Amino acid sequence: MKDKTFLMIPGPTPVPESVMLEIAKHPIGHRSTEFSAILENVYKNLKYVFRTENDVFVYTASGTGAMCAALENLINEGDNVLCLSLGNFGNRWAKIAESRGAVVEKIEVESGQVIDPEVLRKRLAEDTEKKIKIVTLTHSETSTGAANYVKTLCSIIREHGAISVVDGVTSVCAMECKPDEWGIDVLISGSQKGFMIPPGLSFLVANERAWKVYEQCKHPSFYWDWAAYRKSTRANSTPFTPAVNLFVGLNKALEMIKEDGIENMNERHRRHAMALRHAVKAINLELVVKDDKNASHSITSIYPPEGISVPDIRSTLKNDFDIVVANGQNKLKDKIFRMGTLGFVSDRDIITAVGALEATMKKLGHKFEVGKGVKTVIEELNQ
Amino acid sequence: MKDKTFLMIPGPTPVPESVMLEIAKHPIGHRSTEFSAILENVYKNLKYVFRTENDVFVYTASGTGAMCAALENLINEGDNVLCLSLGNFGNRWAKIAESRGAVVEKIEVESGQVIDPEVLRKRLAEDTEKKIKIVTLTHSETSTGAANYVKTLCSIIREHGAISVVDGVTSVCAMECKPDEWGIDVLISGSQKGFMIPPGLSFLVANERAWKVYEQCKHPSFYWDWAAYRKSTRANSTPFTPAVNLFVGLNKALEMIKEDGIENMNERHRRHAMALRHAVKAINLELVVKDDKNASHSITSIYPPEGISVPDIRSTLKNDFDIVVANGQNKLKDKIFRMGTLGFVSDRDIITAVGALEATMKKLGHKFEVGKGVKTVIEELNQ
Repeated sequence: MKDKTFLMIPGPTPVPESVMLEIAKHPIGHRSTEFSAILENVYKNLKYVFRTENDVFVYTASGTGAMCAALENLINEGDNVLCLSLGNFGNRWAKIAESRGAVVEKIEVESGQVIDPEVLRKRLAEDTEKKIKIVTLTHSETSTGAANYVKTLCSIIREHGAISVVDGVTSVCAMECKPDEWGIDVLISGSQKGFMIPPGLSFLVANERAWKVYEQCKHPSFYWDWAAYRKSTRANSTPFTPAVNLFVGLNKALEMIKEDGIENMNERHRRHAMALRHAVKAINLELVVKDDKNASHSITSIYPPEGISVPDIRSTLKNDFDIVVANGQNKLKDKIFRMGTLGFVSDRDIITAVGALEATMKKLGHKFEVGKGVKTVIEELNQ
Repeated sequence: MKDKTFLMIPGPTPVPESVMLEIAKHPIGHRSTEFSAILENVYKNLKYVFRTENDVFVYTASGTGAMCAALENLINEGDNVLCLSLGNFGNRWAKIAESRGAVVEKIEVESGQVIDPEVLRKRLAEDTEKKIKIVTLTHSETSTGAANYVKTLCSIIREHGAISVVDGVTSVCAMECKPDEWGIDVLISGSQKGFMIPPGLSFLVANERAWKVYEQCKHPSFYWDWAAYRKSTRANSTPFTPAVNLFVGLNKALEMIKEDGIENMNERHRRHAMALRHAVKAINLELVVKDDKNASHSITSIYPPEGISVPDIRSTLKNDFDIVVANGQNKLKDKIFRMGTLGFVSDRDIITAVGALEATMKKLGHKFEVGKGVKTVIEELNQ
């Protein structure tokens, strides 16, 4: 039987049945009063989930679209942009900044590491002429599973007078992320992650400091233009034809998140990620992110043991247990595998995943005490 | 009973049940072999529908996104762009070009009119220094229902040595549109139109002449970058996370279009649009586009008779018959109403629509011979 796939990749993530049933409805007119009422509810609930008083814009585009929507409304040719990179998605900020003609400088760390706030503080202190206008960073780096100290980093950036632009694609919903309270100037995220709907929508919230920089931007990109989105969002509309079905699904998913409570959702992700991490260690596998406090609560990256390949682990999990986990990206391809515990994931799913991982590793000849992973999960989840 | 809505707006258009059932499936991983096989089929069938040998790129974005994907890969600051505008969407090309710092000139016509090829020829002849690099135009202008002589206009543009960029949002599938044969350099379209799926995807095809201009573009926009899309498309992949569910629906819809045959689909749209136009005249209503040969085959715009308002016509059609038609846009708001006959529309739907329109106009006190509209449709469709 082949129709029982369980996605444990960092996205798309599992979608609740009730959300899929909403998406399955025939599209309605996007300029109708019915759809406007849906948008009103969506925009209101997004402010709750993003913990912000600012408007949250919804783009019909994937997460990278929202990354472009951040930088393409801020950068002029020749601007200095500092990109703090933990991996593939940190590097994407740099590529987008370069595509706009910015002068880009990167602070990079090894896979699994995070940015040391003191390194950032030192670099910015050297920028005595205050040339650095924008600093980009990643909350949860999807390619490694490392998570930055966003609150600290953003406060250092603010002290310097630059704008912080944060990728929250796999953190919003999963990890505590408070743009207003923490002083994140621009925050983006994507739908197929913690939001529990399929890919195709992405989100952006900008504060007044970011708007001041926007006002100096010579050529904001038409499709992403903040001014158009602010005007439409405040009128419970969209500037261009939205992905109607995904919005209807989002409306349902946001209601579920609100009912659950965003703090509870954050805490559940933390418990799941920690239980998975500790189970992985209990079965003698090595984590890419060594320290719990540097770990994403939505993605866990794991090294295969000596002599067992990532493709074998992935295909055994897929063929024997219908569980899909992700390979590493770029230079990490076949070097690590990544398990997502993001969005619509229950305690049962973590037990299932660890049980299947144990069975897989046993089959492939890995040496460990079978059952110890699941035991760890059960004990941790019962805490 | 309120759950029987029939959309006759220019998009979203009706979606076949079998396509909705595909979209309703839980998302699969976008880097899986299963999804790659779907993409292979989608990309192959898009070439058939677009009647091109060039790659057709699919963007996770609405139609305006594909418009940006056209101009943001071609324009450098200071470039001269000539925009041929029939209305709102023709003007959108101009706005996007301006947002990139182009020097924009517009040739505009009254609502319902089309561009006279001789006017274009004359203007280009004056451009003796060949400053005009790009000419934008609209095939079927969604805001008025007028349709340009794209083949003729594009051959004039090519003679001059400029690049033609064509909005085929409401023409591809509905009207004959042959980019390779006609020399359209860049053609874009959107999913919620003739493609019979919900909004959220859009399409772009560019030829070698356009690629030469792309190569001179200093700052192609990252999310729309043609080089990234060409590389991924040829590898049956996507550069960024695609709207998986919409792609799965598109795969099904393209199979239906192929089975129908693109010529048959074009011809059906022509028959429907002409039958509707002639029925509208038969019940003493005035068309915005006077001449059949200037009419879009997907949108028909109609003036309300003296003393009867557009909102009354729209709300009566909605409340009494669950048929949604569109208002005019911008300066045409409440001045015209627009009926879409685009995508998944059958002969029966045209009879239904005209019957309901007759009942509505009778109720609102319009003077005409009741039944003459439906008679016209039946006679024309039986031709």
